[in-house]
Amino acid sequence: MPHKLFRMQKADDAIRGAARPVMLAIAGDSAAGKTTITRGLVEALGPDRCTAVCVDDYHRYDRAERRGKPFTALHPDCNYLQIMEQHLQLLAMGQPVLKPVYDHHTGRLERPVLVEPREFCIVEGLLPLHTKLARACFDATVYLDPPEEIRRNWKVKRDTAERGYADSAVLAELDQREPESAAFIRPQRAFADIVIRFAPLPGRVVPVGTPLSAELLLRPTIRHPDLDGVVPADVRDIGARPAIHLKLARDADGRPVDALHIHGDAVEADSEVIEKAIWSRLGASSEPPTCLGRISDGQRNAPLAITQLLLLYHLLDAARLGGLV
Amino acid sequence: MPHKLFRMQKADDAIRGAARPVMLAIAGDSAAGKTTITRGLVEALGPDRCTAVCVDDYHRYDRAERRGKPFTALHPDCNYLQIMEQHLQLLAMGQPVLKPVYDHHTGRLERPVLVEPREFCIVEGLLPLHTKLARACFDATVYLDPPEEIRRNWKVKRDTAERGYADSAVLAELDQREPESAAFIRPQRAFADIVIRFAPLPGRVVPVGTPLSAELLLRPTIRHPDLDGVVPADVRDIGARPAIHLKLARDADGRPVDALHIHGDAVEADSEVIEKAIWSRLGASSEPPTCLGRISDGQRNAPLAITQLLLLYHLLDAARLGGLV
Repeated sequence: MPHKLFRMQKADDAIRGAARPVMLAIAGDSAAGKTTITRGLVEALGPDRCTAVCVDDYHRYDRAERRGKPFTALHPDCNYLQIMEQHLQLLAMGQPVLKPVYDHHTGRLERPVLVEPREFCIVEGLLPLHTKLARACFDATVYLDPPEEIRRNWKVKRDTAERGYADSAVLAELDQREPESAAFIRPQRAFADIVIRFAPLPGRVVPVGTPLSAELLLRPTIRHPDLDGVVPADVRDIGARPAIHLKLARDADGRPVDALHIHGDAVEADSEVIEKAIWSRLGASSEPPTCLGRISDGQRNAPLAITQLLLLYHLLDAARLGGLV
Repeated sequence: MPHKLFRMQKADDAIRGAARPVMLAIAGDSAAGKTTITRGLVEALGPDRCTAVCVDDYHRYDRAERRGKPFTALHPDCNYLQIMEQHLQLLAMGQPVLKPVYDHHTGRLERPVLVEPREFCIVEGLLPLHTKLARACFDATVYLDPPEEIRRNWKVKRDTAERGYADSAVLAELDQREPESAAFIRPQRAFADIVIRFAPLPGRVVPVGTPLSAELLLRPTIRHPDLDGVVPADVRDIGARPAIHLKLARDADGRPVDALHIHGDAVEADSEVIEKAIWSRLGASSEPPTCLGRISDGQRNAPLAITQLLLLYHLLDAARLGGLV
């Protein structure tokens, strides 16, 4: 069925009336990988079909003003959350917004920018799932949940390289933010339809330098794409170490959940088979775009590519169905 | 009935549910007197009860960017009018907005500010009445309509004194803007409930230096306060040159309209009687606030004070009635 999802979209737009975008939230702590995962999705869909909105731009105070405050940028009181909710509602209804802009390099608030909703709207940031009203705006919600040790390494690497901080300053900031991470960021994990954890899989011994694996918890809070159809049966049975593996598991709170393991130590060719299988199901005749799986320094992580392909499947499926119900 | 209007407001708030502000638009060309008239109203009501919003902050381009465009700042395409409409709707529904900010001194767009609606919201600017959706947000609409010669003098005076321009630059800008004033600003006059013109009254010979008179066209598009009750009968009959005078007239398009003349050459004591009569009717026991009638250089214009008092009457009346119907 080539191009099936892409073709059906047009007919559905007419049925749905005013074009309302499919809204995806990607929440997570600082340096959890939100921008990396979002960038690949936007590039794969094309900027003409997809808008990315970072809700960390809704800071109430700039960096200088925050120095005199008893909280960090993670705190809800440090952000115009009511305006964030309002803008998410407007975008979800297909309306444009004039979005504030925070410059991470200078720490200053700049002139706002017009954001016009397109077919897809990916909202990433620290607090997109903090309030019920904000959560209600999304068709699907993702929480990025790397182990703290890995996240700290990522943050030190990024903030020293891209934002001009010293190692010690980043580590001090991480410690200062920890109580607010615990109080406001990590509780959002409970509200995600998909929890994504890039990490070595527990109980699996791999050589040093092996790419990180990914574990995706697919919660029964939304309808997930049928993976039986996406992952060919023979790929799932290729031996003791398949590239991708779905198993019934228990969530952190004991509730049943589907756990999808994507193995960083899989043979490259096996991962490619999975990627192509999902990509062809999205209705695309060509190869999966090279933007998927791209991490820093031009490197590639196959579990990230497969994760992004599954999110693309979700987005296109939601568009086809006119929103998940 | 002291404080009647002020007291009834509270009970009405409960009846009206979510507190929706009374919305007043003050439209007019550059230097038509919008800020002067608004400033007195906000000060008289108190900034805790009244929000002032300038919709000229919704510029799409800053001054440097406009230089390369085939239109001036007056042109609808030079402004985020759809966002202006959206923000007016939100304010009218009692919701806060994150309003863009244009710095008239630097010509740059700056970080936005949070605007939270209060009991009253006065919206002034070049294009608040340009679209039907924007107009629908207001309880009452005003257009400032000074003779072009007077407005040009005002603009030269202000822009050279406050915005650092040379006379020749201001005059050149006025000429450059004239086609867009004609096309987009002046047509808004037709949509105002009240047209205000500060000028010498035609056919009335007064000495040089006499304060400007005011003519208010009170169109039958909304219910106007009962002037018979406001202006005591004996004041209206004090002779050939009363301070204030209401007469049936024809609008520019021939339609019937009430024309209220407020005479700049009235004896100060006569103007004061009018001002106090209106002020006491607003439920205030004290003297009218000194902020009313204030123009540049600390001078005072009695017709402006009376005009502002009538607008205050309108605002408080609309609040009492829960919006004009």
